[in-house]
Amino acid sequence: MTMGKLRWAIPEGFLPDKGPHADDRELASHEAACILNTNDRDARLVLTLYFSDREPVAPYHITVPARRALPLRFDDLRDPEPIPRTTDYASLFESALPVVIQHTRLDARPGQRALITTLAHGCD
Amino acid sequence: MTMGKLRWAIPEGFLPDKGPHADDRELASHEAACILNTNDRDARLVLTLYFSDREPVAPYHITVPARRALPLRFDDLRDPEPIPRTTDYASLFESALPVVIQHTRLDARPGQRALITTLAHGCD
Amino acid sequence: MTMGKLRWAIPEGFLPDKGPHADDRELASHEAACILNTNDRDARLVLTLYFSDREPVAPYHITVPARRALPLRFDDLRDPEPIPRTTDYASLFESALPVVIQHTRLDARPGQRALITTLAHGCD
Amino acid sequence: MTMGKLRWAIPEGFLPDKGPHADDRELASHEAACILNTNDRDARLVLTLYFSDREPVAPYHITVPARRALPLRFDDLRDPEPIPRTTDYASLFESALPVVIQHTRLDARPGQRALITTLAHGCD
Repeated sequence: MTMGKLRWAIPEGFLPDKGPHADDRELASHEAACILNTNDRDARLVLTLYFSDREPVAPYHITVPARRALPLRFDDLRDPEPIPRTTDYASLFESALPVVIQHTRLDARPGQRALITTLAHGCD
Repeated sequence: MTMGKLRWAIPEGFLPDKGPHADDRELASHEAACILNTNDRDARLVLTLYFSDREPVAPYHITVPARRALPLRFDDLRDPEPIPRTTDYASLFESALPVVIQHTRLDARPGQRALITTLAHGCD
Repeated sequence: MTMGKLRWAIPEGFLPDKGPHADDRELASHEAACILNTNDRDARLVLTLYFSDREPVAPYHITVPARRALPLRFDDLRDPEPIPRTTDYASLFESALPVVIQHTRLDARPGQRALITTLAHGCD
Repeated sequence: MTMGKLRWAIPEGFLPDKGPHADDRELASHEAACILNTNDRDARLVLTLYFSDREPVAPYHITVPARRALPLRFDDLRDPEPIPRTTDYASLFESALPVVIQHTRLDARPGQRALITTLAHGCD
């Protein structure tokens, strides 16, 4: 079983301040790319980050095991460098096998919790 | 009249704690996949759930009658097993007839109500 | 200039209770389908509503003038019949000219304001 | 590396009142179109705005540098004219190079913060 596309883009990324629940991994502000790999083989992806005022940063290497869904936290990325908070960025995922990617942001800054989601833009 | 795709994926699923309105089916945290069947025949779907740390669970059998829209609650699923709360999962629907699927989550955990929606990713 | 698709589906429709601002058209709970017609001719659409437990209701006739964007309020629909509140429904738009349709819901029920949006699913 | 489509539409635009944080650029109500240009050349776009009750307004000229992501604020547009607040409008972007566009609105009117996002509708 295989489903999806080989490349996925998310134009709007933004890691807000962590907010009042900074110590709670689940409730602090964060972004995630959920990657579904329905293939019977591991999917190896390369992620490139684009910014408004400097050259792209890459490669981030990500592996999604066969028949698994990976909730990738953008604030967990470390290599080649972490993503700064309160900075606009965009993401491009390239995979050797078809996958499906959905993006979610929790904005927990003081005031109200805001949650947004969208499928990424996929193409082969 | 027929419209839609045969396969639909939702990479990000998550059933939060029910929240303060746990006894109110409509206001408690939940997820739904709304399935539109414009065909003049019943659509029979098989749902497979993917997880981050174990093998997929399937088949869940779903029937959407001819010319009907079905609001499927993920927390109603029982066979082959219920979906645990506070666990990341992804969904793959396979249908013999074209349908259209949209995903919605109500997160009613203490703090603020958050509501998100997106079309699923469809392909044939 | 022309852009878009001829048919658009929105699987999840739901008109919540109007909420505390029932008399304020803008702040009361509502749903809208924003229809963009970039053509140099008026676009005539037929809307069919699907339900979970009864036959579809149609036709609703909608005209979007040439080079205009129409914010269609679902709670304004009267002919052949108004949409009941707190009832699940789905929408199918059929147009003779390409258009683009986006769906939005404001849920203003007591508690917190929730706003969701997604493009409809388009095909020719 | 190139990715995306040449034309993108966002049927629903609306700039709410700025809300209680009118002086805070980040927290005041606003809309943004995030444009990802993965090409090795600058992408030149023309934006046309559509309204419900008057002729379209164009051209707005936008340049996204090579290998950059641009968070375009709709309330920054001035030429040929600014977008009035509390008015429905739709957007059409035309680009000579493939790009990917995502739309986001922050509604900060008194009550609760609401955040929505969707990919625009893309085609060549």
